[in-house]
Amino acid sequence: MHRTHQALECTKEIVGETVTLNGWVQKRRDLGGLIFIDLRDRSGLVQVVFNPEISPEAAKAAEQVRSEYVLSITGKVVARSPETVNPKMATGEVEVQGEKVHIFNPAKTPPFLIEDRVDVDEAVRLKYRYLDLRRPKMQQTLMIRHRAMQSVRRFLDKHGFIELETPILTKSTPEGARDYLVPSRVHEGSFYALPQSPQLFKQLFMIAGMERYFQFARCFRDEDLRADRQPEFTQIDIEASFLPPETFLSMMEEMIATLFEETIGVQVTTPFQRLTYREAMDRYGSDKPDLRFGMELIDLSEVLRGTSFKVFAGTVAAGGQVKAVNVKGCAGWSRKEIDNWGKVAEQLGAKGLAWLAFKEEGIKGSVAKFLSEQEMEAIRQTAEAETGDLLFFVADQPGVVAQVLGELRLRLAKELKLIDENQYKFAWITEFPLLEYSEEDGRYYAMHHPFTMPMEEDIPLLKTDPGKVRAKAYDMVLNGYEIGGGSQRIYQREVQELMFEALGISMEEAKEKFGFLLEAFEYGAPPHGGIAFGFDRIVMLMAGRSNLRECIAFPKTASASCLMTEAPSPVDEKQLEELHIRVRKPEKTE
Amino acid sequence: MHRTHQALECTKEIVGETVTLNGWVQKRRDLGGLIFIDLRDRSGLVQVVFNPEISPEAAKAAEQVRSEYVLSITGKVVARSPETVNPKMATGEVEVQGEKVHIFNPAKTPPFLIEDRVDVDEAVRLKYRYLDLRRPKMQQTLMIRHRAMQSVRRFLDKHGFIELETPILTKSTPEGARDYLVPSRVHEGSFYALPQSPQLFKQLFMIAGMERYFQFARCFRDEDLRADRQPEFTQIDIEASFLPPETFLSMMEEMIATLFEETIGVQVTTPFQRLTYREAMDRYGSDKPDLRFGMELIDLSEVLRGTSFKVFAGTVAAGGQVKAVNVKGCAGWSRKEIDNWGKVAEQLGAKGLAWLAFKEEGIKGSVAKFLSEQEMEAIRQTAEAETGDLLFFVADQPGVVAQVLGELRLRLAKELKLIDENQYKFAWITEFPLLEYSEEDGRYYAMHHPFTMPMEEDIPLLKTDPGKVRAKAYDMVLNGYEIGGGSQRIYQREVQELMFEALGISMEEAKEKFGFLLEAFEYGAPPHGGIAFGFDRIVMLMAGRSNLRECIAFPKTASASCLMTEAPSPVDEKQLEELHIRVRKPEKTE
Repeated sequence: MHRTHQALECTKEIVGETVTLNGWVQKRRDLGGLIFIDLRDRSGLVQVVFNPEISPEAAKAAEQVRSEYVLSITGKVVARSPETVNPKMATGEVEVQGEKVHIFNPAKTPPFLIEDRVDVDEAVRLKYRYLDLRRPKMQQTLMIRHRAMQSVRRFLDKHGFIELETPILTKSTPEGARDYLVPSRVHEGSFYALPQSPQLFKQLFMIAGMERYFQFARCFRDEDLRADRQPEFTQIDIEASFLPPETFLSMMEEMIATLFEETIGVQVTTPFQRLTYREAMDRYGSDKPDLRFGMELIDLSEVLRGTSFKVFAGTVAAGGQVKAVNVKGCAGWSRKEIDNWGKVAEQLGAKGLAWLAFKEEGIKGSVAKFLSEQEMEAIRQTAEAETGDLLFFVADQPGVVAQVLGELRLRLAKELKLIDENQYKFAWITEFPLLEYSEEDGRYYAMHHPFTMPMEEDIPLLKTDPGKVRAKAYDMVLNGYEIGGGSQRIYQREVQELMFEALGISMEEAKEKFGFLLEAFEYGAPPHGGIAFGFDRIVMLMAGRSNLRECIAFPKTASASCLMTEAPSPVDEKQLEELHIRVRKPEKTE
Repeated sequence: MHRTHQALECTKEIVGETVTLNGWVQKRRDLGGLIFIDLRDRSGLVQVVFNPEISPEAAKAAEQVRSEYVLSITGKVVARSPETVNPKMATGEVEVQGEKVHIFNPAKTPPFLIEDRVDVDEAVRLKYRYLDLRRPKMQQTLMIRHRAMQSVRRFLDKHGFIELETPILTKSTPEGARDYLVPSRVHEGSFYALPQSPQLFKQLFMIAGMERYFQFARCFRDEDLRADRQPEFTQIDIEASFLPPETFLSMMEEMIATLFEETIGVQVTTPFQRLTYREAMDRYGSDKPDLRFGMELIDLSEVLRGTSFKVFAGTVAAGGQVKAVNVKGCAGWSRKEIDNWGKVAEQLGAKGLAWLAFKEEGIKGSVAKFLSEQEMEAIRQTAEAETGDLLFFVADQPGVVAQVLGELRLRLAKELKLIDENQYKFAWITEFPLLEYSEEDGRYYAMHHPFTMPMEEDIPLLKTDPGKVRAKAYDMVLNGYEIGGGSQRIYQREVQELMFEALGISMEEAKEKFGFLLEAFEYGAPPHGGIAFGFDRIVMLMAGRSNLRECIAFPKTASASCLMTEAPSPVDEKQLEELHIRVRKPEKTE
């Protein structure tokens, strides 16, 4: 009754052997007096055939069997006759002649077929997640996830990183996203918070002299969710002391290259391309550019600064930009098509989308009549436009231009199928701004967090022009996704004080907010830095999925519910009493 | 400035090489015009000497340096003269001649010395955990923890187990310990619960066809804490389908043996000893016996059933037991010593502790005068008592006898130093009772959980004598600690229904409590079973520590607080408002 072989082990090599298989009935069909069962286990499928003339009892048992029954089947592996070989099946050259059947468990008819191609409403899949996870594609994705975890751990272990766990019940952090809170039973009116990341703890490990740390850390953010967000997610959290940043970055490249090679057999070339934040924004309108195709943003501001076309000249004069993308070979698009892209641009925040089509018969387009021949020629040269090309222009403040053209570039590439889905294009984005100004609050905020180290040469700017200070921060991007981000950390008190000053936080206030970390820094903090990779997202990209929910065994919906367990749910009043809290009465609707 | 070598790499083999070391100042002392610094990094210590005549600048820099400063030191490795070799130091044959010093960071004087032998109040250590973790012993413990995680993962990966993560934000479970709750912002009045274990999810993985699963799972229990409890803890969670229980148990033995070998170099013999629950209770008075020494409990009930000594005869007649332990060679203990053990027995719940001392001059003791010569001779034979031995007797109901003598046995062994601290004695305890009767509630409860499979031959007893039903449950014990526990699970509906019946739970009620799991079982559940190991405790035993807090990087105190971060803590009213809860007003003290 106990398994001797997995389904996929039933190959030509073991023809003649008697095997016992354990698994689920993928399907049963009766044909010409025989009963055929495709038996599924974790490894795959194999066909079992029951002949009432050979094993009447087994055939009788097989007759009762339906989809998703759990069976043990014993029988001999035999070669199929040439005409019945199934080349689509890994075990298609053989079948098992069923001699014994034991039904471990019957099964109700599942709400959907256990197959990859079945189109089921996601809510149903999530409610019956345990059935959804039986599908080969889901199993493969979770297997990739498993292999990825082992690969990264092996690599980091080999390089002297120590896996250390940090608390899940911890302290509410004053900045950042919204915390999940946990009321304390022992300490009336006090709350733990679930960590948004182990940031403080990883730095404390460095102060504690652990030198190299990593963790597959569960992180929590109580934010409104999008397709690529989950209330809890896993990050590969890494920190190292005394390592030159360059050494650290190449180590991380090597780790990711090893991961892709070991997990999905993809060769990744190192070193990765590097782009400063400025360069990425200029050339791609994004700090996570998809580098699998060109169509870079072309800056025509200088070329058009003196044009008599007021829209362009005025924008440039007001500190704005005129930039374009060259949609190669699309000069023949209809007016309707072009107008549709104009609407897209407007949805993305542009005031409009100007265009020029370089046709055989001359240059046409919405701005053709406003530009001089020389200007058009200069545009042609700068944009390296050839006959047959189409240029889309956006004139606006740099932020808007980047946002619109960056996104337009992506959508055009998808539309034109310029993207090779089998390519993995990695890059580092470096020299991020240290601070962002909030018009609303009239102050600067740390772009990453207040412990990010500024670039040495920019430190004096902290006092004079904080917005210009670049950080020793880096993101790893892959195919248009940010897959990791990190920085070198401030470890010197003077620099930390300058930073808080730039943030408009007094040292006293800072101590209140980050008390124990600042205190820890006074007892001998080493130079250190690190990174955190979005593990769910990396799995998603490796498995070729487009949704994080497909890469997490038991994910939550956009409203942060689990449709299977029905969490969250109401609890007993007694439990709340013990925790010293009560639910607020809903406000009356007037 | 960047490290070329670790401290411990400075050995005779590299004498003559120039190295750069990065680390912390363990201590500085000035001697005969020279400055000596012991530099500490994660690997260990090395001595650096500064000679003002050789490197005046470096010596000058070294002069400013104090304990726990973070330095980069460059210098040449030289052999020490024979009379200055320090055999206590791994690098004691060499020293580094300091040529350059860079101070990465100064340090305030720490609140305690960074040394293993320093005796500091635990509260101070926990407040300054980042300093406490610098101590070699703490670093070694966390390193053992790291190595242990890698070893177990390698083993399970090799044996086809897949590492899968389960949610931390999940549903409140109706039975078991107290849940930590997390109020939902999106779903007013609803709460997530942190998992007490991934029990339901691991079984769902089996139903999902994952076949072999593992996880280093964070678990949470809001219980009052003891020295060996933490509000959050890590368990190695394992579940497998289609595996014969015997195969599974040997696999787990092999895993643990590999773990001990790879992590601390200890050879563990397999297969492990097996004891049924009954046997363990009879022979050791404990379901987690320490098997590093004998002193088994001796049952004298039969021998003394007919005695004229009413205390013994009456106890046996009332269904009780008379049992003893033989304290070898302690017949000479003073009356005072023996009385002290009597007090211990009373504290443990005994009505008294009878004794007999087998002295050269004859048998003495509290019950000598009540027993006949034949009875004493029978006792001597049954207890294999020799001259010089001391017997302690407890006569009571079996539960009390086990509790008292089981604990007395442990304390006597400690007192008499019978325990070889370098020994690791593993065993499986099997055939646990399936159910426990609660006198208070007048009903049975599942000893493990309601999905534990009863032993086939006992299934009929579920209807007639539920208390006698044994479970297919097993604990792994080591040196008196339970380090893991698990069972085969019920996967057949009929058995599950019998189980709920025995628990006095209607199928309707069961569906309400375990709805989705019971539903899942209807879609084809495979035979499966598993185990969960207490990882923190295993680390504790491997590292030779006696407290779980020493084995967790950032532990909580007995009142579930973190003294470093001051979690839990009050939060903003605004946060509570968003979560639709309020703190209850403390009740007025009258």
